[in-house]
Amino acid sequence: MDPVKIQAALGRAIRSRRMKTGLSQEAFADIAGIHRTYIGSVERGERNISLQNMARIAKALGTSVSTLLSDAEKGLDSK
Amino acid sequence: MDPVKIQAALGRAIRSRRMKTGLSQEAFADIAGIHRTYIGSVERGERNISLQNMARIAKALGTSVSTLLSDAEKGLDSK
Repeated sequence: MDPVKIQAALGRAIRSRRMKTGLSQEAFADIAGIHRTYIGSVERGERNISLQNMARIAKALGTSVSTLLSDAEKGLDSK
Repeated sequence: MDPVKIQAALGRAIRSRRMKTGLSQEAFADIAGIHRTYIGSVERGERNISLQNMARIAKALGTSVSTLLSDAEKGLDSK
């Protein structure tokens, strides 16, 4: 799995799940306890995100880190 | 999911899979392209590891990042 591709795919997976919640980046960032601009850069695949921030985002999305990564890997397979 | 607990659980999951390969930390670090002391600190749960390093470690273990995280989450559930 290409490290850069997985980063972009995770960003898409997070954005997709965040959009389903109906929350803006700003509202979601408040819930996750992460800065809005950081969430934006993660969703665009620009961040080599840390495990702790992945855990915060997964929690705010009501899911697990492994599920987010599984979403991301599925996104890669279908490309 | 507690961010600190998941970090420790991921370290245990990586160590467990690395031990099954029969590789030392040093040999494994060479394959993964990561410094041996870094692998040691990850296995001890001391590092807030980045997605790219998780991807390098997963690749060297012949598995996926989501599988490593799933191992880690199962380790948490059983505690």
